[in-house]
Amino acid sequence: MINVNKNFSLLENNYIFTEVNQRRDKYQQENKDKKLLQLGVGDVSLPLPKKMVKIMQKELKKQCGKKHFRGYPPENGYDFLKNAIVDYYKRRNVILQKDEIFISNGAGCDVGNLLDLFGLNKVVIQNPTYPAYYDSSIIAGNEIILLSATKENNYILSPDELEFDSYLIYLCSPNNPTGATFDYASLKKWVDFANKTKSIIIFDCAYESFIEDNCPHFIYEIEGAKNCAIEIASFSKTAGFTGIRCSYSVFPKNLNIDGLNLNSMWNRRQCTKFNGVPYFIQKGACYALSSDGILECKKNIITYKENAFLIKQCLKEQKYDVLDTNNSPYVWFKCPNNMSSWEYFDYLLNEYQIVGIPGIGFGSGGENYFRFSGFAKREDIVEAIKRIKTKKIPPNYEVNPKS
Amino acid sequence: MINVNKNFSLLENNYIFTEVNQRRDKYQQENKDKKLLQLGVGDVSLPLPKKMVKIMQKELKKQCGKKHFRGYPPENGYDFLKNAIVDYYKRRNVILQKDEIFISNGAGCDVGNLLDLFGLNKVVIQNPTYPAYYDSSIIAGNEIILLSATKENNYILSPDELEFDSYLIYLCSPNNPTGATFDYASLKKWVDFANKTKSIIIFDCAYESFIEDNCPHFIYEIEGAKNCAIEIASFSKTAGFTGIRCSYSVFPKNLNIDGLNLNSMWNRRQCTKFNGVPYFIQKGACYALSSDGILECKKNIITYKENAFLIKQCLKEQKYDVLDTNNSPYVWFKCPNNMSSWEYFDYLLNEYQIVGIPGIGFGSGGENYFRFSGFAKREDIVEAIKRIKTKKIPPNYEVNPKS
Repeated sequence: MINVNKNFSLLENNYIFTEVNQRRDKYQQENKDKKLLQLGVGDVSLPLPKKMVKIMQKELKKQCGKKHFRGYPPENGYDFLKNAIVDYYKRRNVILQKDEIFISNGAGCDVGNLLDLFGLNKVVIQNPTYPAYYDSSIIAGNEIILLSATKENNYILSPDELEFDSYLIYLCSPNNPTGATFDYASLKKWVDFANKTKSIIIFDCAYESFIEDNCPHFIYEIEGAKNCAIEIASFSKTAGFTGIRCSYSVFPKNLNIDGLNLNSMWNRRQCTKFNGVPYFIQKGACYALSSDGILECKKNIITYKENAFLIKQCLKEQKYDVLDTNNSPYVWFKCPNNMSSWEYFDYLLNEYQIVGIPGIGFGSGGENYFRFSGFAKREDIVEAIKRIKTKKIPPNYEVNPKS
Repeated sequence: MINVNKNFSLLENNYIFTEVNQRRDKYQQENKDKKLLQLGVGDVSLPLPKKMVKIMQKELKKQCGKKHFRGYPPENGYDFLKNAIVDYYKRRNVILQKDEIFISNGAGCDVGNLLDLFGLNKVVIQNPTYPAYYDSSIIAGNEIILLSATKENNYILSPDELEFDSYLIYLCSPNNPTGATFDYASLKKWVDFANKTKSIIIFDCAYESFIEDNCPHFIYEIEGAKNCAIEIASFSKTAGFTGIRCSYSVFPKNLNIDGLNLNSMWNRRQCTKFNGVPYFIQKGACYALSSDGILECKKNIITYKENAFLIKQCLKEQKYDVLDTNNSPYVWFKCPNNMSSWEYFDYLLNEYQIVGIPGIGFGSGGENYFRFSGFAKREDIVEAIKRIKTKKIPPNYEVNPKS
């Protein structure tokens, strides 16, 4: 018998969003007349800027002409997009080299695939967390050290809780799911810790464009980060690219471990196991980083943040226990009446026809918590608020023991 | 210090195609007036069918409208494309279930990423081989067993050379780089061997649409294959999609190893580490599998095969030792005058301004061999033939010891 990766048996059967969709679809199937409000998954809902789509269409059209036909893209991206990213980082005084940037088709892919570069390690992950960090680390067989993000620590992790040792450390700021965001001092502590302990930080800045407080957008704004941190970025939330697929990661040139260079290794890994992102898609991403593009994308981001604000206001008025943040499309709050996450999920679905994400889906630290998403459609947000305001939670709400 | 994946140090520094491109670019830089003929990399050069591009453009355009905007695609693909693939396989009497099909963004990705599902194993790989099988297996830390494909065995591997044991077995037919293709009997031997030894075959059929002899296109045409084989397929060569990015893999439902199900594991892996292929691209791929689409794509395939035929004829006339096959876009031949692969590469580049792929790039079994590609532009093929015919190989050609 060949050897199979037994670590898969340590995973929950279903990825959280799959489970949510299954319960949602089942309910809709059984209640065809009911209009469900989707306040769950972190997927964008607003159309892309017209000009951006035009650019992509124009380039795509060239694929049926002989003169401008293009085959394989370079595995790590076209220079024009890398140059645009270099300029984008310069706006915040971060200097990147072009060959530190690797264009990819999804931050979720890179987050997991970069574990190919490592042996077995202690991996530090926030609890609750974006599930891909956890699941990918389990698949790879790593030992996982969970650090709780709670009301007590303001949902901001600190390395003080860790023993002096070398770790792979996943950090996400603004955070998915909580929305908490590192300020300069709290992120500096992590960079200093990583440099002292020879740890590697994997910094996920997928939501950086939602920041409005004075907080670092990129980890390389912190001194010393280039010696200890990989950064994962994406056009998914910044430019509404969840259905288009483009992202990038930054591997500083001088990240060396045990005689091996992470930048070269990632280059080798991608050249072997990845075939690049289509030219026309990279052209669209490049527009998103132009002055016009940034402004246009910002309009959508503002709408999403307003959505989050509206739902947050409503929950606060109803005395829900809500995490207040200015830097995130997400709303993280405690389930009412001490309900478990899934109890509240089923309750919301059955009584309000609202779909959210149970906090427990982000790990045990999310139990009794819940996430709404400002990426929902405005009309769904408005209708959800109406339902939440008019239908009070029945204090004697009977929990279905099977749910 | 954290643990790094030391297996990377076992890899050649450069992926073969990267090295080829570097030497090519250096030569062009130093010889700006010379027109290079690209007969190397296996990248398509003919434009896509107009109707296919129109369909994709139309769907892409909808991304700037509110009504039809689409976010994340389903991780494993839209049903319409899976249904089209089910029908495509039916044409050869292979019955697939929809949920045995996983849409992806590249066969090269799946070839490497599927090793996530396995522990350490003995991996059987042809020598010479498409490098991604080898490099991915090295990165994962597997023991590699090379089987030579030579003139003596007609470039067709047989399991007879293997000890009775369980293996992961990469097979590619029509073969890259040699072009050799399994007939029913020779592939049946592998399926029987795998079932007997509880091995798993990873069957790469990326070039199936180039087959004209009576050979299996899909491994599932062989009885028993659903109990031992994963199939990797791609639109890259079939539909000219190298720059568009769409592929798929087939994991039969009943592939169980040690209590774990490979289909479920791959589903879990992709839901965790992959975010799907854009809707509009899947629509284009779907057109490629329609009756009209197949006919239109076939036109390009015929041109590529004619290219291969022309260059093969020329080489045969010049008394080169060429592998004759009807089922492949590639031309595999022995370097003249006992030159090594890289010697001949440099010779062709410097003397003929022709870029090909040194056989050694596909492994030690490719030393003294060379690959031309019928994917080259027709005008380059014609011009290359002229150069090869007029400029004879100087028998006293001085080998540059540094090359």
